[in-house]
Amino acid sequence: MTNTAAIIGGGVIGGGWAARFLLNGWNVRISDLDPQAERKISEVLNNARRSLPGLSDAALPPEGKITFCGSIEEAVSGAGWVQESVPERLEIKQEVYARIQALTGNDVIIGSSTSGFRPSELTRGAAHPGAIMVCHPFNPVYLLPLVELVTSEAASATQIADARAVLTGLGMYPLHLRKEIDAHVADRFLEAVWREALWLVRDGIATTEEIDNAIRYGFGIRWAQMGLFETYRVAGGEAGMRHFMAQFGPALKWPWTKLMDVPEFTDELVDLIAGQSDEQSGHHSIRDLERIRDNNLVCMMRALKSQNQGAGALLNEHEAQMRAGTVLAALADDIEDASQPVVTIHRAVPLDWTDYNGHMNEARYLDAFGLATDRFMELIGCDAAYIASGGSYFTAETHIRHLDEVHAGTVITVRTRVLAGGGKKMHLWHEMYDGDRVLATGEHFLLHVDLATRRSAPAGPDVDAALRRFADAQAGLPLPEGAGAAIRAPR
Amino acid sequence: MTNTAAIIGGGVIGGGWAARFLLNGWNVRISDLDPQAERKISEVLNNARRSLPGLSDAALPPEGKITFCGSIEEAVSGAGWVQESVPERLEIKQEVYARIQALTGNDVIIGSSTSGFRPSELTRGAAHPGAIMVCHPFNPVYLLPLVELVTSEAASATQIADARAVLTGLGMYPLHLRKEIDAHVADRFLEAVWREALWLVRDGIATTEEIDNAIRYGFGIRWAQMGLFETYRVAGGEAGMRHFMAQFGPALKWPWTKLMDVPEFTDELVDLIAGQSDEQSGHHSIRDLERIRDNNLVCMMRALKSQNQGAGALLNEHEAQMRAGTVLAALADDIEDASQPVVTIHRAVPLDWTDYNGHMNEARYLDAFGLATDRFMELIGCDAAYIASGGSYFTAETHIRHLDEVHAGTVITVRTRVLAGGGKKMHLWHEMYDGDRVLATGEHFLLHVDLATRRSAPAGPDVDAALRRFADAQAGLPLPEGAGAAIRAPR
Repeated sequence: MTNTAAIIGGGVIGGGWAARFLLNGWNVRISDLDPQAERKISEVLNNARRSLPGLSDAALPPEGKITFCGSIEEAVSGAGWVQESVPERLEIKQEVYARIQALTGNDVIIGSSTSGFRPSELTRGAAHPGAIMVCHPFNPVYLLPLVELVTSEAASATQIADARAVLTGLGMYPLHLRKEIDAHVADRFLEAVWREALWLVRDGIATTEEIDNAIRYGFGIRWAQMGLFETYRVAGGEAGMRHFMAQFGPALKWPWTKLMDVPEFTDELVDLIAGQSDEQSGHHSIRDLERIRDNNLVCMMRALKSQNQGAGALLNEHEAQMRAGTVLAALADDIEDASQPVVTIHRAVPLDWTDYNGHMNEARYLDAFGLATDRFMELIGCDAAYIASGGSYFTAETHIRHLDEVHAGTVITVRTRVLAGGGKKMHLWHEMYDGDRVLATGEHFLLHVDLATRRSAPAGPDVDAALRRFADAQAGLPLPEGAGAAIRAPR
Repeated sequence: MTNTAAIIGGGVIGGGWAARFLLNGWNVRISDLDPQAERKISEVLNNARRSLPGLSDAALPPEGKITFCGSIEEAVSGAGWVQESVPERLEIKQEVYARIQALTGNDVIIGSSTSGFRPSELTRGAAHPGAIMVCHPFNPVYLLPLVELVTSEAASATQIADARAVLTGLGMYPLHLRKEIDAHVADRFLEAVWREALWLVRDGIATTEEIDNAIRYGFGIRWAQMGLFETYRVAGGEAGMRHFMAQFGPALKWPWTKLMDVPEFTDELVDLIAGQSDEQSGHHSIRDLERIRDNNLVCMMRALKSQNQGAGALLNEHEAQMRAGTVLAALADDIEDASQPVVTIHRAVPLDWTDYNGHMNEARYLDAFGLATDRFMELIGCDAAYIASGGSYFTAETHIRHLDEVHAGTVITVRTRVLAGGGKKMHLWHEMYDGDRVLATGEHFLLHVDLATRRSAPAGPDVDAALRRFADAQAGLPLPEGAGAAIRAPR
């Protein structure tokens, strides 16, 4: 059964939640008083649709259905999760919870997107206080995995486990705080940095652009992958974390931040900062900046995915969950009919595979075919465990025909046929489709290799048998058009 | 003439400077009292050699020569730049400057790696105060571009311009502060976040690992590409920066950070943090963590490079400088002898092209050949301006033979031959070498395309003539072994 999420309060954050639920296969019911809500949310959805589906190397489930509702009560009807992103005023939030919980019980979690309020404040006077918890996300909600989960004492272990399961299922990382505190964890850091930045601009030490550069060319990119403590652990070197801390202890007594005081928030300061920000990037529209940001985030997260680190390690974990139970998770033994090509790739084209026009780059066709080959190898038992035991297939030759173009976000399918196989050899034929449209073909000749000597050697008996099963069953198929062909002779 | 840098004080920071100068073609002379300095610096150099050369898509100049010296005076002899990274004690630094400036004049810049001292403090009593300036880098110095440049009133415009030129030439981004301030800019943010993080751990809100996750799964990865103000500009949406600030003004009065106070730096707090950090990653050695960090940084910076954003935009600027004047910068008209294959790629294999064993991935061979094709297109005048005018070549077919393996850091060369060309067609043959060792061949058939209709169309007359010049001059060469070949027939 398809799950349904009620989104109470649209805007950038509510819209981001709507996009994350919808693109992960949930139905979404939205309540927002703003007559512009539908337009605003559709803009967030457009951004999400171009960036999220290709982020992972596994296909997302089919999109759910989105409904705009006339009231909170209508939106909540039938919902298994309610996400509240109304303005940051406690009395408004409490009233919204009362209206929701007139219709829902202890089993329907209400996640609050609040940046600052503690759950003990949010749940005061509620009918089902345990079901109300802070689920504070980060913009853009459809891409960034962090969600701060803060629960009150009324929350049961089951309610907390349910909330974790839903958030993890959306590809998010629920950080469950050990205790509640104003502004949770991340926004306390943001507030500290914001206050210091206001001083630096006000005192004329650096402009907004210079401060942004100080962050993104230095500690920002360092924190993106390891955070604060791990970065310092590495910097401390062999002497260890205690030694590092001993060095930096004295600085706590030095005037190295102005945070012992708060700058006065005058019109002059606002004008100074807004003016510098216009100077820095007023030539870009906000829509442009959103696309630039999302491209950057997707490309960096996928770079980290290749290293299985940071946000990329989360992506890999989520992908493993998504693959479980899909057709691509089947093993060769489960494929009863080996006589037809098998689906080895079914995924959206990610932003980092495309050029500035949004078309898939030439070299990325080989990435896709390489992934298809990896997947076929897994199918015949040449999986991570087999490779760790010392054998694998290496590609010796590749012949790609580029037949048509494809854009970021398009779901491509690769079907793989075995032209020949057995002993040291494996000869594969991949066809890449967008629906019925053939985009490219890839012919690949691989040799099985002993990873110790890095020389060719026969495959292990199980892998060999699984490969021969496909090769024999498919031997009767007609030779695909283009197979065994050379690039036309140059003379 | 090769430039020479004197590195006064080794360690992680001094070693990082040594690596950055050396790998950018400077000779380096090191003075450090620590008998372990040579070992420690060689470890930093090993890290730098595996990560920096492939970071850019242009080859670095040949490495300079490294010399370990017995004294500051010996190290400084003949140096055009002195980088001081001795311990953070003002009297030690001032004494070092006195010894250096007994031998150097106003023209030799002394960059100080100090995190905290202001130039007016550093230069007090110096013989040539204008030559002493803060050049504060970020670890790992060989990869991160940020360097905070803070000058005293004694520094002349020429001295500042010279310092900028040297740092920019090293691929760094000198952020010249408008005024001096304790701890410059970036470390003020780091100090603010550090203090807040100490509170959060001490008060049991989150562990070191949870705090690291709160950073790297949320605002850390956001800051890595845009910094603070630009991120808020985007979040503020169409309503603009003033509106955003008006929303967040009130929070300045709320207890959203504990930075109005400083935590007591007790043994218990040190034990708590060091213990949590051991729990988090004590199973990794510091060397492992350094490699993980550097892999992540290189992959993220190269991801940003593909988008021409953030640290990636800096890489592209530096690359354009490095290419100017190299053999790869020549235009086709400058190539007097068109009868031989031309060098189209000369670069180190970057970390993001390799698998977990450090071997170049199958699909990256096509990346390299794709770059070689792009470069050849530029050579015949199919450059950015021509493409913007509406024409380009698209690859229709590719045939790659993988002949040998190559590791990250290896400098590869691609030589490109024209097998045929003219009208709509271009048939290229790339050979990839590590020295004399052939790694792979790539045969590519391309069609010239009208970018408006995305259908094949004849190339413009100048491009066509330049292509035919190569095709005609190379028509007499013997057909390369493997050209025009099919993958062996499957039956």
